[in-house]
Amino acid sequence: MDPKVMADTLWTLITAMLVFFMNLGFACVESGFCRSKNTVNILSKNFIVFAASSISFWVLGYGLMFGNGTPWWGTEGLWFLGGADNSPATGEAYKGAYASLNWTGVPLLAKFFFQLVFAGTAATIVSGAVAERIKYFSFIVFSFIIVGLIYPVIGHWIWGGGWLAQKGFLDFAGSTQVHSIGGWAALAGVVVLGPRIGKYNKDGSANAIPGHNLSLGLIGCFVLWLGWFGFNPGSTMAADVDAISRICVTTNTAAAAAILSATIVSTLLLGKPDLGMTINGCLAGLVAITAPCAFVSVASSAIIGLIAGALVVLAVIAWDKVHVDDPVGALAVHLVNGVWGTLAVGLFAQSQWMPNKANGLFFGGGFTQLGVQLLGVVSAGAAVFLMSLVAWAIIKATIGLRVSIQEEIEGLDIGEHGNSAYPDFVVRKTFPVSTGSVVAAAEPARR
Amino acid sequence: MDPKVMADTLWTLITAMLVFFMNLGFACVESGFCRSKNTVNILSKNFIVFAASSISFWVLGYGLMFGNGTPWWGTEGLWFLGGADNSPATGEAYKGAYASLNWTGVPLLAKFFFQLVFAGTAATIVSGAVAERIKYFSFIVFSFIIVGLIYPVIGHWIWGGGWLAQKGFLDFAGSTQVHSIGGWAALAGVVVLGPRIGKYNKDGSANAIPGHNLSLGLIGCFVLWLGWFGFNPGSTMAADVDAISRICVTTNTAAAAAILSATIVSTLLLGKPDLGMTINGCLAGLVAITAPCAFVSVASSAIIGLIAGALVVLAVIAWDKVHVDDPVGALAVHLVNGVWGTLAVGLFAQSQWMPNKANGLFFGGGFTQLGVQLLGVVSAGAAVFLMSLVAWAIIKATIGLRVSIQEEIEGLDIGEHGNSAYPDFVVRKTFPVSTGSVVAAAEPARR
Amino acid sequence: MDPKVMADTLWTLITAMLVFFMNLGFACVESGFCRSKNTVNILSKNFIVFAASSISFWVLGYGLMFGNGTPWWGTEGLWFLGGADNSPATGEAYKGAYASLNWTGVPLLAKFFFQLVFAGTAATIVSGAVAERIKYFSFIVFSFIIVGLIYPVIGHWIWGGGWLAQKGFLDFAGSTQVHSIGGWAALAGVVVLGPRIGKYNKDGSANAIPGHNLSLGLIGCFVLWLGWFGFNPGSTMAADVDAISRICVTTNTAAAAAILSATIVSTLLLGKPDLGMTINGCLAGLVAITAPCAFVSVASSAIIGLIAGALVVLAVIAWDKVHVDDPVGALAVHLVNGVWGTLAVGLFAQSQWMPNKANGLFFGGGFTQLGVQLLGVVSAGAAVFLMSLVAWAIIKATIGLRVSIQEEIEGLDIGEHGNSAYPDFVVRKTFPVSTGSVVAAAEPARR
Repeated sequence: MDPKVMADTLWTLITAMLVFFMNLGFACVESGFCRSKNTVNILSKNFIVFAASSISFWVLGYGLMFGNGTPWWGTEGLWFLGGADNSPATGEAYKGAYASLNWTGVPLLAKFFFQLVFAGTAATIVSGAVAERIKYFSFIVFSFIIVGLIYPVIGHWIWGGGWLAQKGFLDFAGSTQVHSIGGWAALAGVVVLGPRIGKYNKDGSANAIPGHNLSLGLIGCFVLWLGWFGFNPGSTMAADVDAISRICVTTNTAAAAAILSATIVSTLLLGKPDLGMTINGCLAGLVAITAPCAFVSVASSAIIGLIAGALVVLAVIAWDKVHVDDPVGALAVHLVNGVWGTLAVGLFAQSQWMPNKANGLFFGGGFTQLGVQLLGVVSAGAAVFLMSLVAWAIIKATIGLRVSIQEEIEGLDIGEHGNSAYPDFVVRKTFPVSTGSVVAAAEPARR
Repeated sequence: MDPKVMADTLWTLITAMLVFFMNLGFACVESGFCRSKNTVNILSKNFIVFAASSISFWVLGYGLMFGNGTPWWGTEGLWFLGGADNSPATGEAYKGAYASLNWTGVPLLAKFFFQLVFAGTAATIVSGAVAERIKYFSFIVFSFIIVGLIYPVIGHWIWGGGWLAQKGFLDFAGSTQVHSIGGWAALAGVVVLGPRIGKYNKDGSANAIPGHNLSLGLIGCFVLWLGWFGFNPGSTMAADVDAISRICVTTNTAAAAAILSATIVSTLLLGKPDLGMTINGCLAGLVAITAPCAFVSVASSAIIGLIAGALVVLAVIAWDKVHVDDPVGALAVHLVNGVWGTLAVGLFAQSQWMPNKANGLFFGGGFTQLGVQLLGVVSAGAAVFLMSLVAWAIIKATIGLRVSIQEEIEGLDIGEHGNSAYPDFVVRKTFPVSTGSVVAAAEPARR
Repeated sequence: MDPKVMADTLWTLITAMLVFFMNLGFACVESGFCRSKNTVNILSKNFIVFAASSISFWVLGYGLMFGNGTPWWGTEGLWFLGGADNSPATGEAYKGAYASLNWTGVPLLAKFFFQLVFAGTAATIVSGAVAERIKYFSFIVFSFIIVGLIYPVIGHWIWGGGWLAQKGFLDFAGSTQVHSIGGWAALAGVVVLGPRIGKYNKDGSANAIPGHNLSLGLIGCFVLWLGWFGFNPGSTMAADVDAISRICVTTNTAAAAAILSATIVSTLLLGKPDLGMTINGCLAGLVAITAPCAFVSVASSAIIGLIAGALVVLAVIAWDKVHVDDPVGALAVHLVNGVWGTLAVGLFAQSQWMPNKANGLFFGGGFTQLGVQLLGVVSAGAAVFLMSLVAWAIIKATIGLRVSIQEEIEGLDIGEHGNSAYPDFVVRKTFPVSTGSVVAAAEPARR
């Protein structure tokens, strides 16, 4: 066996496992940042979403995304990975239905496994933003749709040799493809669902609804950070030693810088270093470096991270101002910083590491790459938002989307699952405690 | 250094680390599924069991399992890995005491490390079924026995070149060798121990005793799922790129399918999608695909998983009907689905991936392989159950097996360890709350 | 690409990721072993410390540690990894500013990433000992100092080709370089800070202050144990198959033996097998085997672990006798066993695995190596303790080091962060509950 194929396959599979593990990270961050009465529901959503993704991406998603076809979607080898394929042959030697991945010399099922865990990530991002009010089975249905249809269609544009790829749009590990897509789909869901009961007051002010378990939140964040060492360096899908070493460091440096800037900015704006903000700062830095990680220097990665950490704090505050209720800050992290990271390629890229040898704006390359990046951000964003809006609307009109007021107040754990996450512990009733207090919540600032 | 030996060793060691990490998974699932008053005890058992395994398998277990010898057990190089060995030489070039592993070209200590973490898994499976009533030191003694004697003897039959291996019995990563063995040993323990106080009522009905922390349970499940990407693909003990890629996907697909079917079946039978059932569904799918993962197609793995997910829900209910009290569902997961997965080899195997080129029943191979699989299931099961029964009985007769009624009611944490897992939190007394209520529990259904 | 460079780089990066993950382990053990009212603060410290390390080690630490220079510190390529470097060239072929790492054939940024996660570990060790009373921002400042200055200077002596390396001091993966350094810096901090309010009584006796969440503690311990399979075997920074296989086993065996001996010794001394002691036993075994892991047999590793497990229990008790208040046992684990492990090289080393072909005392090599080891322990310890004392004193004199009495009693979570870790749960007030009870605590033994 060719040693390079062995090394490439080990790297691809092991990093895929790390990305898989991010499902745990999301489950912990999201449940930790929400109330204890909804814990079982959030854990369940973040658990079953990867099961749905695994089936949906196998049945249709992979073929739609990577199959040879039009600039808009794949048409060959659509169903059940059924196309011809002589991987690990690469380049010209590759013969098969999935030519867009012919640059990596690993078996087809290694490619599938790696791409599957990415698709699952996009789907799980949605979960946090719609938490604490969505019906369990309705969420599952949307998970099948996003991984089977929405994610792969955009994926074909960006990574499947489609029209955005042909224009030179660059998104190394998926600031747009994974994080923004998840973010736009989540935003559509939040728009259709509306805010949680009691979140906003009549005068427009917002009530803080603290998460029930910050230990769980931090476990989640570290698991995600670890997973990102699969996500970004693994996206080489090859044991390219210089690239993977550098990407490990740019990824880590952006996260570190973002932790520090989010801590400073949140201390300045809120008075104290809020741990939730620091955690979201870390994730924001990781999201932002995801697109440019392979194209920028370590110093640039620090700057990208610093900005991401500040941006996420401002974005959390801003979404609340416009009454977009995102319990865990998923939009601030994944949507806003997904956009930022994608644009950062056009600013900080250096030709030595760029496949098209183009420099970014700050390195003398002018606006060319930045323009293409902006085009990608806008077109992918618009397409995902619209497709998701239609999907959410259909679900709402058919099986319904939101639990009853009574169930939302009492918690989705009992209502949706008949479980309680912590039955041995004495738990406080969290605001609002009854339908009466829902009305009361319309009065300003009583906590 | 031969690149293949390097790649094979990296793969073997890294996947072994993932399997090691499953100890955390079991600790979390089992403690999360039990009451808070027994948490320290369960964590302690799941922690020290791997320490005991590490010593026991080094001192004797490895030699007994893989040493050259009779069809029943190894006799060469028995103690302290002391036999001659020229690994990583393979095949005919191998000269040494452990010829049954001469097919993998990695150093002896890499083989030992990989096999050790498997042995530890079998031991830790026992822990969940006997939880909430077994004496700490008695459990430790049994751990030494199963890893030093019971597991390696059966292991010699199956993986050590013994009589079952010679008959053509196939158990790729251990649905029988690890999971059923753990399950049969646990069943023997449950039979000797009896059910927890308050579990069953006079009229035969069972009381639900909910676990204290489902966040912990889900953390455990994801850690186990991750670990299984070491367990199954790692069992190649070689960087065989096609096999390991495919095994990653069959393993994942079975888990995903089982999650979905367990969710559906538990919703149909119990009214709502219980998270505990979904978690056990996932584990059931993983256990079931463990034997056939290398021999079946992705589509077959989905079917095997679908059945496993349904089976585990039915099995949990069935064990309760016959008053076998297994607090965490370990028997439904590991025993029942270990058997199912082992038989599934005889049903779904396809010759292209089988070492003996035999097809399973559903692919035209007739009943031959299925018959051998059944023989293995029955003989290994009977042997482990009987040996374990003897071991448990001796422990009971000497140092005792079960804590006092008073201690069981007040919780094993204080009684066995002098610790409380959550001393800062206000905790509810869980049923039964006093010896008085034990009597009361004999009256039907009062919760 | 050279297959060896590929395998070496994969191994170095993947093991570095495991070591990175140890940050989560420390966060969980430390917060689990402290009170719930300080959880957010401890999580925050253990989170941001790696961000600070990442920046500090990049800006200056790496150059100071590995740059060519004097026997005392590096002077070439000091800032921002800015020196010339033609890695992965090795030995004579290496040309660059960081010749002390020219023995490993991986890219510069892989070396940096691996060494960074080690530096971060030393910094995070400090966190546990100073917990529950240190100001958040003061801790962050010290983190920058230890990783940017203290750790790299000693690191130059030991791993950077400095004077201790030239004397033949051997510390394979850092019992001294990482663990003792962290321990000595922590001891200096504890000396300057003083004990927690209410810890010691007038008559000199100590009050037990139990940790709030042993589930969290055990999660942390398993994550650390996993991380150690990166820490020790990864320190080869090469896919040297024999060495890495053996180091996996010596590392694991020492941990297992230490778990068993700590359990036995704590049962003998304290009456019951305390889980906290068992966890610290495991960590003690891992710390102790860190220096000798590559130089000793499996049997020797078991003995080293057995002693470590006993030592940690005695050390926890001894530190309390001299009123050094270390809430999590970090000094007993990292300092005491870091010293023990470093000396163990001089006792148990066997020439076949030693770079200098010297045997330890127990294998006929006399006192030569042991003497050098002792010199290293004393000189590194004295230097770190003094430098840290100065740093802590300056921080105390400028921005202050300790929170107010009121804040310490009410908990640092609200005081430092404005967060509560578990707002939904009903939590007990932990001792002391008011400034009044601080006075009361001066009276003997009231709990």
